[in-house]
Amino acid sequence: MRNIDENNITQAVLARMDGCSNPRLKEILGSLVRHLHDFAREVKLTEAEWMQGIEFLTATGHMCDDKRQEFILLSDTLGLSMLTVAMNNAKPAGVTESTVFGPFHVADAPHVEQGADMSGGATGEPLFVTAKVTDPHGNPVAGADVDVWHADEDGLYDVQRPDLVHHQGRAIFRTDADGSLRFRTVLPVAYPIPTDGPVGKMLVATGRHPWRPAHIHFMVVATGFERLITHVFRDGDPYMDSDAVFGVRSSLIGKFEEHPAGVAPDGSTQSVPFHTLNFDFVLQPV
Amino acid sequence: MRNIDENNITQAVLARMDGCSNPRLKEILGSLVRHLHDFAREVKLTEAEWMQGIEFLTATGHMCDDKRQEFILLSDTLGLSMLTVAMNNAKPAGVTESTVFGPFHVADAPHVEQGADMSGGATGEPLFVTAKVTDPHGNPVAGADVDVWHADEDGLYDVQRPDLVHHQGRAIFRTDADGSLRFRTVLPVAYPIPTDGPVGKMLVATGRHPWRPAHIHFMVVATGFERLITHVFRDGDPYMDSDAVFGVRSSLIGKFEEHPAGVAPDGSTQSVPFHTLNFDFVLQPV
Repeated sequence: MRNIDENNITQAVLARMDGCSNPRLKEILGSLVRHLHDFAREVKLTEAEWMQGIEFLTATGHMCDDKRQEFILLSDTLGLSMLTVAMNNAKPAGVTESTVFGPFHVADAPHVEQGADMSGGATGEPLFVTAKVTDPHGNPVAGADVDVWHADEDGLYDVQRPDLVHHQGRAIFRTDADGSLRFRTVLPVAYPIPTDGPVGKMLVATGRHPWRPAHIHFMVVATGFERLITHVFRDGDPYMDSDAVFGVRSSLIGKFEEHPAGVAPDGSTQSVPFHTLNFDFVLQPV
Repeated sequence: MRNIDENNITQAVLARMDGCSNPRLKEILGSLVRHLHDFAREVKLTEAEWMQGIEFLTATGHMCDDKRQEFILLSDTLGLSMLTVAMNNAKPAGVTESTVFGPFHVADAPHVEQGADMSGGATGEPLFVTAKVTDPHGNPVAGADVDVWHADEDGLYDVQRPDLVHHQGRAIFRTDADGSLRFRTVLPVAYPIPTDGPVGKMLVATGRHPWRPAHIHFMVVATGFERLITHVFRDGDPYMDSDAVFGVRSSLIGKFEEHPAGVAPDGSTQSVPFHTLNFDFVLQPV
């Protein structure tokens, strides 16, 4: 086929995939091509705008390394991540809801004993967390791996501090026989997603703020249950209704209580005010 | 807004751009978000497939450097480039048509005298090109800058040879007072687009071949005329109807004539068979 124009090109590209032996790939790429072409025709994309798009995607790729995932950030801020999460994680009432994974998880977080301080030196007000992992009937899930990660009082994850050689605010715990979990860390605060890359430029150009309400990330993995990837949001945060990545669910807002200096839940004496959070996770059986 | 689901998220993302002060950017990004979300819903994209997409885009970005533009290659192979070119370059009958820019242009090609050999040592059968640049009435366009680039007999551009420190098969000429252009180079051959990156994997996975019919790239820039970005394709090429990037237009197929060894158009004596091409470019006034 030759003399392809802006109208017959879509069919030409789809026809070129006739020999694709993977029906799911053919379906996905075929749909992507149709929507991509429809988009370009709808806005009558100019060649200069096309080149800006190429340059934006290239810069986004160059921003990605083992500690930074700018394409996930782009997907998050365009709502594609939350759309995908919501579409794939419809849960029965009572089961803990999922939200976005985010770009700051790392694969090699340290395994830490129950009750330990996972802050790793991250600064912030003391926070004592207790939690329980159960099935939908309230039966404890023992031996679940609970991967926890969060930002410090400056709103930064450890991977955003280039000089840091060890993990901060990042740990994997294993639930006790009664499904319980307890640890100490620092209070999460609202923070802007990284704005020093192409996604930050896109937010500025579209008049959007980069803030996320304060939260702690949890990923819970237990045999016989669906993997749960979620957050617990800190109640009262001013960004709860304008999360830059559209991740807030009412059921995931935890009650963070502030206490005066004194004896903390772990028996230690705190010379400054501290916070507590109790939150229960309900897993969906596979 | 919270408790966003896969249906109301599109409106939520669009509403977040209400403050965008650039109406064109708002239009483009709004359309992109709608089509991107429609795509994900239509195929019911899974989280694993979403992650494959993130990894594909990241690998594509990491393949890009000052000599390789994998996102342009992706756009080319998905038909987006030719769609954009066709949509923006509807030309009156008689004016030379445009086609894709491709990923192998470089900004710093050498300026070369008329009649010179632009192969720069690239191997291949000798080719002598004559051309004329005119307006739609046949009046010569003098002093037009004509940027020419093409692959060698191995189907490789100079930028694909990492050890090469100078340009090959790449030059910028200026038309004479009569709008004419002449140079020597080597015969272009059909070649596969680079298959060592993510785009190559996509082609294999979808059962597509990577071949482009033999061609020479031309970019013609002259005061008072629209910039022309095009190819001249070599007649008789077996890939003329299955160009991997959908760029062929009948009007851009040139007649490459083969001659026995003997006196060439530049007066030199060739000891091997050689080829000639004559092609005229008609520019559209601005």
